[in-house]
Amino acid sequence: MEYQKILDTIKAETLNKTSTGKVATYIPELAKIDPNKLGMHLYCINSGHYGFGDENERFSIQSISKVFSLTLAMSVLNDELFDRVDVEPSGDPFNSLIQLEYEHGIPRNPLINAGALVIADVLVSILENPKQKFLEFIHKITGNTSITINPKVFESEKKYSYRNASLLNLMKSFGNIKNDIETILDLYIYQCSVEMSCKELATAFMIYANSGKTLSDDVQIISSRKVKRINAIMQTCGFYDEAGEFSFRVGLPGKSGVGGGIAAIHPGYYAVTAWSPPLNPKGNSELGMYALERLTTLTGFSIF
Amino acid sequence: MEYQKILDTIKAETLNKTSTGKVATYIPELAKIDPNKLGMHLYCINSGHYGFGDENERFSIQSISKVFSLTLAMSVLNDELFDRVDVEPSGDPFNSLIQLEYEHGIPRNPLINAGALVIADVLVSILENPKQKFLEFIHKITGNTSITINPKVFESEKKYSYRNASLLNLMKSFGNIKNDIETILDLYIYQCSVEMSCKELATAFMIYANSGKTLSDDVQIISSRKVKRINAIMQTCGFYDEAGEFSFRVGLPGKSGVGGGIAAIHPGYYAVTAWSPPLNPKGNSELGMYALERLTTLTGFSIF
Amino acid sequence: MEYQKILDTIKAETLNKTSTGKVATYIPELAKIDPNKLGMHLYCINSGHYGFGDENERFSIQSISKVFSLTLAMSVLNDELFDRVDVEPSGDPFNSLIQLEYEHGIPRNPLINAGALVIADVLVSILENPKQKFLEFIHKITGNTSITINPKVFESEKKYSYRNASLLNLMKSFGNIKNDIETILDLYIYQCSVEMSCKELATAFMIYANSGKTLSDDVQIISSRKVKRINAIMQTCGFYDEAGEFSFRVGLPGKSGVGGGIAAIHPGYYAVTAWSPPLNPKGNSELGMYALERLTTLTGFSIF
Amino acid sequence: MEYQKILDTIKAETLNKTSTGKVATYIPELAKIDPNKLGMHLYCINSGHYGFGDENERFSIQSISKVFSLTLAMSVLNDELFDRVDVEPSGDPFNSLIQLEYEHGIPRNPLINAGALVIADVLVSILENPKQKFLEFIHKITGNTSITINPKVFESEKKYSYRNASLLNLMKSFGNIKNDIETILDLYIYQCSVEMSCKELATAFMIYANSGKTLSDDVQIISSRKVKRINAIMQTCGFYDEAGEFSFRVGLPGKSGVGGGIAAIHPGYYAVTAWSPPLNPKGNSELGMYALERLTTLTGFSIF
Repeated sequence: MEYQKILDTIKAETLNKTSTGKVATYIPELAKIDPNKLGMHLYCINSGHYGFGDENERFSIQSISKVFSLTLAMSVLNDELFDRVDVEPSGDPFNSLIQLEYEHGIPRNPLINAGALVIADVLVSILENPKQKFLEFIHKITGNTSITINPKVFESEKKYSYRNASLLNLMKSFGNIKNDIETILDLYIYQCSVEMSCKELATAFMIYANSGKTLSDDVQIISSRKVKRINAIMQTCGFYDEAGEFSFRVGLPGKSGVGGGIAAIHPGYYAVTAWSPPLNPKGNSELGMYALERLTTLTGFSIF
Repeated sequence: MEYQKILDTIKAETLNKTSTGKVATYIPELAKIDPNKLGMHLYCINSGHYGFGDENERFSIQSISKVFSLTLAMSVLNDELFDRVDVEPSGDPFNSLIQLEYEHGIPRNPLINAGALVIADVLVSILENPKQKFLEFIHKITGNTSITINPKVFESEKKYSYRNASLLNLMKSFGNIKNDIETILDLYIYQCSVEMSCKELATAFMIYANSGKTLSDDVQIISSRKVKRINAIMQTCGFYDEAGEFSFRVGLPGKSGVGGGIAAIHPGYYAVTAWSPPLNPKGNSELGMYALERLTTLTGFSIF
Repeated sequence: MEYQKILDTIKAETLNKTSTGKVATYIPELAKIDPNKLGMHLYCINSGHYGFGDENERFSIQSISKVFSLTLAMSVLNDELFDRVDVEPSGDPFNSLIQLEYEHGIPRNPLINAGALVIADVLVSILENPKQKFLEFIHKITGNTSITINPKVFESEKKYSYRNASLLNLMKSFGNIKNDIETILDLYIYQCSVEMSCKELATAFMIYANSGKTLSDDVQIISSRKVKRINAIMQTCGFYDEAGEFSFRVGLPGKSGVGGGIAAIHPGYYAVTAWSPPLNPKGNSELGMYALERLTTLTGFSIF
Repeated sequence: MEYQKILDTIKAETLNKTSTGKVATYIPELAKIDPNKLGMHLYCINSGHYGFGDENERFSIQSISKVFSLTLAMSVLNDELFDRVDVEPSGDPFNSLIQLEYEHGIPRNPLINAGALVIADVLVSILENPKQKFLEFIHKITGNTSITINPKVFESEKKYSYRNASLLNLMKSFGNIKNDIETILDLYIYQCSVEMSCKELATAFMIYANSGKTLSDDVQIISSRKVKRINAIMQTCGFYDEAGEFSFRVGLPGKSGVGGGIAAIHPGYYAVTAWSPPLNPKGNSELGMYALERLTTLTGFSIF
């Protein structure tokens, strides 16, 4: 198949499109990103790498890191993990707090902030040096040990973590947080501060397309059964209150971050990433979603 | 593949399981169903029909009918339909009314009651004799003209439709209902009163597994692109506030009904149905979900 | 005391104030009211009548009627009435439906729409000809048999009653509505369509200031104990989600209507009414609230 | 009037009543209080002190302290205070967090936890040594310098303050908290840990009944206009989601605490307090509410 041609078409179409989105501005380090950055990378199981644009420039992965921390936790724990965090879509953005209160401190799923904070708490409990272990996990699935955090983003996010501290305290009042709140916040902000390029991110996401194994060296990182579950969670919960829209338009499991990145997979076929900083009102990369929609439209196949 | 063996295993396992669920009792006609009824039917694109138990006994399809009415509306209309109903999961059971009020009368998706009522309103607007047309649609996709409603269920539901009337009036106050409320309720209750067997339902759902075409006579009922969208909606919204759980455990797009039926599909491979009247606390067939979970586990493959 | 002087001051101050409010426009009959209408009437137990402006022009009492229907129901029933409607403030405007669903069809209080509809249902159950009886009740407490409804308002409101029909259907689904929905709506809209002047309304409200008795002929309309309870309900629930603000600024029990009227009382001292059609964003007469605030400020005494 | 006789009757009636309430148990110091403690004190402007039972035994005033901190803040600041906290009843217990999120970090009123935390933040900003100043304020209005906190309660509450920390962090994320969260929590818990007897509390509340002046030495603590506003807030917001019920049954502005105390006032007449540790499901002293209801019933007069 002529994947590179399809990507070239997508590039042309996307460059042609005027974004009405807005770059995230809650911390200066994100606010100063060039809004015109645009990259895409497709990593196919059968035919390797394709891409265009700023596909090799690193950006802040932010919430995409939640998929990695979930994978790390699930690689150690079994279904008991889901006593502490559910797997249902959350419905509304503003629901996070009321749902958490109404549902006695059990977050809706591990890909909203409250759920990812529970996962961070779990990692603090089960790992010796969780920040280092988290980075090592990414090194292992990408085969690239140069990936690390952006210390300015890390420091900056620390100053704007009141809402996450609010969620942690509320869950702690219900007994669903076991460790010190500062320690958990520190790990959570650390994981969000990791920087990766589209190509690196697509390589990392290959384990979700390839039944839990890396493609380059065929190492089983997590069981096939658990990967299916992670994919199912990404499908229903990966895009906040736009999960349905993404499923409807793109038809692939995936996860977005406020840095403008999106990673998605077609199980058995490929991992794909896109990066464009301006976000739509729901907080997802506007052109990134468009590029992925064009991919499944032009190739004519999605999981549905 | 030895599908019949797998189904036999599922039958044995399911019969062995004690259900803690409860048969729907809000109308007498549903309450008096034998809770021990159990049927399953698998209809494969490549290898035809498999099944067990009460797979040929008809039951009330109830909310599964929402998929058919959505398909009928989408076969006539394009994306303008989604100005009146969104495609996002709804989050909570109790949310239906607050979301509807907060979101100015636009239902979350076409598979919750509010959304299905908007679809019924659309059908009243675009079809001459919508009740007859709805039945003809089912006849067409199943090749079976004997399928019809249960008049007792129809009459009985009419007496318990206050909540649906409440939803309709609320949406009408926001201008999102165009026709007479009684007419819409009449159509909606009619579609829910249709009775089909597991085998008939699996045959009907084949269009969603087969890119919009019937398998027996290869008639394109709805475009491949629209079928993908319906499947995406089933994936994220088909099981009320258990959509994530179903996706997580079963990994297939599907739809349940309070009559105890579940229909699901694996695009490109098969349609599958299960029937067991006792419902879990979320309103989905307890053993039906279990049987489908066993299917994707024993076959080792799902859309993820 | 020089009440007329105080009222003259209030008149001057109020005429001087630019209203930013908006006349209710959901039905044409209310929309075409002259926004510059302004009237006020003070009826003191010890010293009789004072007033200014359009105090003798009748306007649509709308929700102020809820106090009369509650009084009529309480004059027949005792505390069992409060099994069907609570006496707590409702908090939010948008809460009405979610609270009603969350609290299983029991409205927060008799002065929000849902609660007033339960009271209307009660009146349909206990009175032979409730519309006539309602009017007779007003005739009795005002000593004025010329008071009646505006038939155009009545007909017009009938066409915009979807939201109230939604509330009734929801409550009926919980078993908290006993009679036919159309009959209840008919009575409810009828009571809202009554027209009274500031002077007539102040005369009617004298029973709440005068321990349940009319002042002119000393007839005990309702017991002193029940009047205290009605006053308590007006104090905490009379101004939707601005009840606290009214209590804070004015300090009197009262009730407003979207026709721009407000009636309030100081138990043991006086009844007072104001009319100015433009409403603030919370749906209460902007200048009416201001005039009453000036009254308690200039007289230097309120219930607090 | 024979107030002591009325109080003796209330004592007999209350002792006769079996409480179904439960003593607060979230900290051990409250849990071990004798549930049979019962005291009441009435302090009349014209005729002095009356009381019975454990009226001189000190107990934890808990949320009753919110009235004092509000008074202290209002004695320094004017209406600008109400830009940061509203004066509306909150509706539901579970609303606190959703309302706070929906209303962008502005609490409903100063007598719910979120609002009292904003007031504590204000006191940290405007006072040099707020803990000491708070205690001095109580000493001043009671004329009793022996009143102080229970250090065990103070330490114990510090360990269970996750929910309040959650509220503070959420409000800080909206910019409505100016000082360090630990400092605010420290002051808030300190004020809740103060212990006073029924007699001392009634003496303190006399300023609200006496237009802002102490009765013994006629010192104007706060202006008459501001006292009316505090009383209005107590009336609509003093009993969480039972404010309407208290207003309905008792008809006086007041405030309760989880220590089992209730303080209320009749402006121009008296201050009254009751203490009985078992709480009803809404968190208010069951027998305390009963005793106050009997008081306004037997004396036949309330503010309504």
